[in-house]
Amino acid sequence: MEYGLLFGGKSYEHEISIVSAIALKQVLGTQIAHFIFLDGAHRFYLIAEKDMRSQFFSSGHYKKCPEIVLKHQGFHTQGLLGSKPINMESLINLIHGGDGEDGKIASFLEFYGIDFIGPRVEACVMSYNKYFTKMLAKEKGIKTLPYVFLDKREGSAIKGLSYPLIIKPNRLGSSIGISILKDEKDIEYVLDEVFEFDSQVMIEPFKEGVKEYNLAGCMVKKGGDDTESEFVFSVVEEPKKRDFLGFEEKYLDFGRTQKVKKADISSELEMQMRALFKRIYNPLFVGAIIRCDFFVINDEIYLNEINPIPGSLAHYLFEDFSSTLERVILPKEVSIPITYHYIEQIQKAK
Amino acid sequence: MEYGLLFGGKSYEHEISIVSAIALKQVLGTQIAHFIFLDGAHRFYLIAEKDMRSQFFSSGHYKKCPEIVLKHQGFHTQGLLGSKPINMESLINLIHGGDGEDGKIASFLEFYGIDFIGPRVEACVMSYNKYFTKMLAKEKGIKTLPYVFLDKREGSAIKGLSYPLIIKPNRLGSSIGISILKDEKDIEYVLDEVFEFDSQVMIEPFKEGVKEYNLAGCMVKKGGDDTESEFVFSVVEEPKKRDFLGFEEKYLDFGRTQKVKKADISSELEMQMRALFKRIYNPLFVGAIIRCDFFVINDEIYLNEINPIPGSLAHYLFEDFSSTLERVILPKEVSIPITYHYIEQIQKAK
Repeated sequence: MEYGLLFGGKSYEHEISIVSAIALKQVLGTQIAHFIFLDGAHRFYLIAEKDMRSQFFSSGHYKKCPEIVLKHQGFHTQGLLGSKPINMESLINLIHGGDGEDGKIASFLEFYGIDFIGPRVEACVMSYNKYFTKMLAKEKGIKTLPYVFLDKREGSAIKGLSYPLIIKPNRLGSSIGISILKDEKDIEYVLDEVFEFDSQVMIEPFKEGVKEYNLAGCMVKKGGDDTESEFVFSVVEEPKKRDFLGFEEKYLDFGRTQKVKKADISSELEMQMRALFKRIYNPLFVGAIIRCDFFVINDEIYLNEINPIPGSLAHYLFEDFSSTLERVILPKEVSIPITYHYIEQIQKAK
Repeated sequence: MEYGLLFGGKSYEHEISIVSAIALKQVLGTQIAHFIFLDGAHRFYLIAEKDMRSQFFSSGHYKKCPEIVLKHQGFHTQGLLGSKPINMESLINLIHGGDGEDGKIASFLEFYGIDFIGPRVEACVMSYNKYFTKMLAKEKGIKTLPYVFLDKREGSAIKGLSYPLIIKPNRLGSSIGISILKDEKDIEYVLDEVFEFDSQVMIEPFKEGVKEYNLAGCMVKKGGDDTESEFVFSVVEEPKKRDFLGFEEKYLDFGRTQKVKKADISSELEMQMRALFKRIYNPLFVGAIIRCDFFVINDEIYLNEINPIPGSLAHYLFEDFSSTLERVILPKEVSIPITYHYIEQIQKAK
């Protein structure tokens, strides 16, 4: 398979996406035929393989690369004699956070009918917005931690909560902007800080000693058949314990190229997680490799969050990542007939 | 105010959007400076005012109009000597259904930082998908009719429901594809029919004699001030009674240019509807003029659906539509600094 790899984006996770793309390049090698970078000014650039180093982007050198445009039939280079399509079999959306996970890039790709691996618009919105994820989990009968949702514009007072609390920007990943609040007296200050990142925040109890587990997976073609499907699951990982999940640690996480050790959990718990994963995935996330982050408290599984584009696609959790990627089922484009039937009827009746 | 008006789209509501745009042109007159048509092949055309007749589109004549592109700083005409921006103060998104209400067009406009009146990506997804609207209403403590959600891929059996039922495509507006099911024996047939329009369906009890009321509104600037806001509400309309809301009737509805009569309801009920409207609108729908369709059963209000881009913006429900439109508050673009701080730190540490 010849992939295009799309990374960058105008978001707080811009740098993370660059590191993530460099890691995925090491894993997939020549299977990635084209590297496409979206910069903070919302311009796309075609990056040569040899330039896939973090400094190439931080230094601004990428601006000397050809600027490309996204339109019908995909990305195009532009020259004096017109534009030329950049050929690929499928595009991997590896833009973490804003643009990539909020539905914008998915919209472009769906609009232009481009085959891509990544969450579709609805899947993005339901997972990027933590408040909507809570609603989705509730609807599907999946436990989540209790929460208070706060919008800056509404400015509701929050009283009578038990401390400590964890306060997260509602629409941001990679632990950016997360604060632990130990005492009510600091709430104004901490809220101000989190509101820097998003106008909405999600407040949850901060529980110490909670077990955390990550499970990635996707729906793939069964055998060579296009009509039958099955799930591929990764190993369950117990992420490195961090009292407070720091951005820098998570950041380095995105550059991982090594496989991880399977978490020490019962096969029963693993089966339960897989069942919950399927309930979340199907049909909303078809087309994407996602990672579900669970908590286990008193043997009960809680959904913490859905990561619709995990760092370097969580390749390090899969046994055979490359073949899994090739088998991902992409949603079919729906054909919609435009007949002008009603307009013609009305014209006749006039 | 000089508006651009965007209409059409690749959707079952393509024709409806054309009729809707022609009606809005009659209402806003010269305030609309540019008409932009999105055809079924996902190409944008700049339409001259004199050509804003339904036959111009159904005949395919629009293809002789200049094709334009959407990019940074908005829509552009393209000539031999480069591209030229089409200037407008604000764009009205009047693409009903797919493209316009599913988040795709909103994504383009948000991505390119274009001022527009219409729902943003999240608002589109939460209102276009009836299943998500149910979740949102539940979360906000707003009643809706009981329902069964069905996805074609999952193919759940539905047994033990009370008839008659109303079966709707989950992601489609304007009553397209809606069926009434009187008896279990017809369920397979009816489901097949509805699945023609969408791979997901929403099933609800069909209640006869339910009162239906529509209320439109938006958040606007208070006085000349940019920082203070207030709500403008339309009159409450009791839509013409239709046992079965037919597409053709609804279709003609979209072309309305006459004001409607206020529904005969108590001011208490009206106040309750306004309170529910605000709870739904804020903050998700900021930037849009939306219409909430309510049912009243035994003096209790139920949310039927949220129409994030009502036919010709439901202008006929407003007392002073033109000034309301001018005062709509648009969400502010968030600036995101891309500093390369972390990449630089890592490079130093090497």
